[in-house]
Amino acid sequence: MKSEHPLGIPTASSAAVLEAHEDQGRTVSRFDRWLLRRVMQAAGNPPIHAALWDDIDSYVPDGHSYGRIVFRNRSVLLGLMKAPELAFGDAFSEGQIDLEGDPVELLTRCFGTANDLGPTGFKRSIFGRLPTAETNTTAGSKRHIHHHYDLGNDFYKLWLDEKMVYTCAYYPRPDATLEEAQIAKMDHVCRKVRLEPGQTVVEAGCGWGSLALHMARNFGVKVRAFNISAEQIAFARERAEREGLTDQVEFVADDYRNVSGTYDAFVSVGMLEHVGANHFDQLGEVVRRSLKPDGIGLIHSIGRNQAMAVNEWLEKRIFPGSYPPSLREMMSIFENRFSVLDIENIRLHYAKTLIEWLDRFDRNADTIRTMYDEPFIRAWRLYLGGCAASFISGTLQLFQVVFTHAANNNVALTREHLYPSAGTNDTTPTSTHTWQQFD
Amino acid sequence: MKSEHPLGIPTASSAAVLEAHEDQGRTVSRFDRWLLRRVMQAAGNPPIHAALWDDIDSYVPDGHSYGRIVFRNRSVLLGLMKAPELAFGDAFSEGQIDLEGDPVELLTRCFGTANDLGPTGFKRSIFGRLPTAETNTTAGSKRHIHHHYDLGNDFYKLWLDEKMVYTCAYYPRPDATLEEAQIAKMDHVCRKVRLEPGQTVVEAGCGWGSLALHMARNFGVKVRAFNISAEQIAFARERAEREGLTDQVEFVADDYRNVSGTYDAFVSVGMLEHVGANHFDQLGEVVRRSLKPDGIGLIHSIGRNQAMAVNEWLEKRIFPGSYPPSLREMMSIFENRFSVLDIENIRLHYAKTLIEWLDRFDRNADTIRTMYDEPFIRAWRLYLGGCAASFISGTLQLFQVVFTHAANNNVALTREHLYPSAGTNDTTPTSTHTWQQFD
Repeated sequence: MKSEHPLGIPTASSAAVLEAHEDQGRTVSRFDRWLLRRVMQAAGNPPIHAALWDDIDSYVPDGHSYGRIVFRNRSVLLGLMKAPELAFGDAFSEGQIDLEGDPVELLTRCFGTANDLGPTGFKRSIFGRLPTAETNTTAGSKRHIHHHYDLGNDFYKLWLDEKMVYTCAYYPRPDATLEEAQIAKMDHVCRKVRLEPGQTVVEAGCGWGSLALHMARNFGVKVRAFNISAEQIAFARERAEREGLTDQVEFVADDYRNVSGTYDAFVSVGMLEHVGANHFDQLGEVVRRSLKPDGIGLIHSIGRNQAMAVNEWLEKRIFPGSYPPSLREMMSIFENRFSVLDIENIRLHYAKTLIEWLDRFDRNADTIRTMYDEPFIRAWRLYLGGCAASFISGTLQLFQVVFTHAANNNVALTREHLYPSAGTNDTTPTSTHTWQQFD
Repeated sequence: MKSEHPLGIPTASSAAVLEAHEDQGRTVSRFDRWLLRRVMQAAGNPPIHAALWDDIDSYVPDGHSYGRIVFRNRSVLLGLMKAPELAFGDAFSEGQIDLEGDPVELLTRCFGTANDLGPTGFKRSIFGRLPTAETNTTAGSKRHIHHHYDLGNDFYKLWLDEKMVYTCAYYPRPDATLEEAQIAKMDHVCRKVRLEPGQTVVEAGCGWGSLALHMARNFGVKVRAFNISAEQIAFARERAEREGLTDQVEFVADDYRNVSGTYDAFVSVGMLEHVGANHFDQLGEVVRRSLKPDGIGLIHSIGRNQAMAVNEWLEKRIFPGSYPPSLREMMSIFENRFSVLDIENIRLHYAKTLIEWLDRFDRNADTIRTMYDEPFIRAWRLYLGGCAASFISGTLQLFQVVFTHAANNNVALTREHLYPSAGTNDTTPTSTHTWQQFD
């Protein structure tokens, strides 16, 4: 029985999930086993065991095995040959596929062997797909963002950090907590754009408002923060009230493209993935007219080493309209406008962040079950675990790009100011040498 | 009287230089003044005075003036309308154009107003030109490199730092000396590729050998350093002998494309400008097969914000076959092979470096005059000053790109290790946190 699922998963009733398990009694034929081997081959022969609904390993990897995948009926196998990414995700959500073992480790190894196929092999495999045009017009973006970020603040509260920062954290030490790492990320961003008291900042895509409030509270700046997620903006405004920062931070329920005025800094953390490569030139224009002559911009985004379509299941069920661009594609934002000053790739920080989110999600699974159904929960675990695996296997990157108007010579001499004295927790803005002689 | 000039400047005799001044007595016509105004307009109306051979200002800028240009005959003006970059450089070398005032300031301001024309205006101006194909085959490269780098070590000794480092220095503090800044640059490079004692390094384009010797001496690594400049390699080998490092550093008189074996680090400082964008994929392949699975690469190169031809005079007279690529173009080296970990733009460090070189060149001009003629000296001053101006005006950039195999997870947590404790001159390798859990 199909129902209106918040993620759009085709079947969402528990009855459908139970039905899927009925094949378990059915005999496994030679054709089924052949299909399985074809599927595993198309995936690059990953180092895991694979079984059909008879629960007998029909595929055994050479060398070490990092887990096991079980296919509960034949139509799943056929679906995987046709539209592998979408079919895998939906089938897993519905319980037609199960993973045994640590899901992050298992998926990491699968992505790893797919990467080893090389660029041509990867593109021909079930993982590769050509980029398709997104529909991130002002209206389209609003629908896309609503699909994900308006799922409910109570839901997100259960597994994000206490400040509700839904982007890659930054771990200055491997043993930092998620809370410490999110604060460190916000400080890192603020230092990169060299915030000083009294300056003004425009933030494009402000989430639940943590970064905007952090900038105002810790660095003494005024912020105008844009977001088209109604739920997030409402939450952010309440926080500004509670923290007494309404005179410093203005949360605007609008698309970043409608920003006006000029600012000392432009900041966009975890928003570019929702823009789409065909809108990068437009974004570049918006930033160009919004940044003061010696202003500094920062874009923090998931990215790729080379252009490749986003995972089809992720794009349909979790983040519609999303596209993680290659560094080359990102240059469309900056060329003929800005100089790129600094690019940092913190890919593995996102892996650690996602593993922490997944862990908190698991620990609160019972509570989440009162909000959403089993397919939702399975889908979310696949999303968090699969993304962690993507970062660990090097399939996804995380770029922080710092830039400024090409003619601006009021730039820091070095990046030393990003790294305050070792051994202290000093987060006050550090002074920066600049090029007096060229300014 | 034409002679075989080391830089290929068409006229090199003092007689020709004197002849050029003969127009000084000739009457300046209305057509000449019109021509002058057209030239200044095509250059974007720069903020300097301009005079013809009557030494009377025929062009006066609005607002502040940063110097004065004098055109000594009509054919110069005509030449500038036809092939502006080449004509300007040759005419200046021959004394047919003079600059009054600080040449770096003057040229910076001229480049600045040209940049303000915007990308389309700049390209249509006398400064813009489409990229042309280089001829950096193995044979072609050898000729190109010989043209510049074999001009004579005694010549270069007079104005480079004492270690003969002919690339952009790195100033950790604004008041560092050139010598300190070149050492700081070498340390910076070594820290970026995280050198450890006992490791092996391949260096592509090693100049007079300073970096290779520095890596061996200070970081305890073995280096195989490639260079196709015969003069430079001879010098480097002598230094290795003198410093007792012949068992650690091998200087190879060969093209980097012939490297074999695998190494812990690949380093290329000031070489990419000589490769040409059409060879980037080939370079990427060479590095890919040369770098161990957890090896780190670093490419330090002059670059652009967006693709544009190199200055025609610079390419014909100073650096034949050279091409400073845009960041976008550089991605051809990395895509489908590597992850970019870190990009740092130290553009203004090169401005400061070049100003220091020009200053030392000027202080040793009399000695240089015993080696080379007046047009050579004028050309070299225009080259050093014009490049400084290019960096200050944001026409050129300096990128240090750090990269590694896409599957390598043995990467530093942060970039903190690049910035040892403030206030010390500690240059010993700093320990780095890495991602134990993902390695």
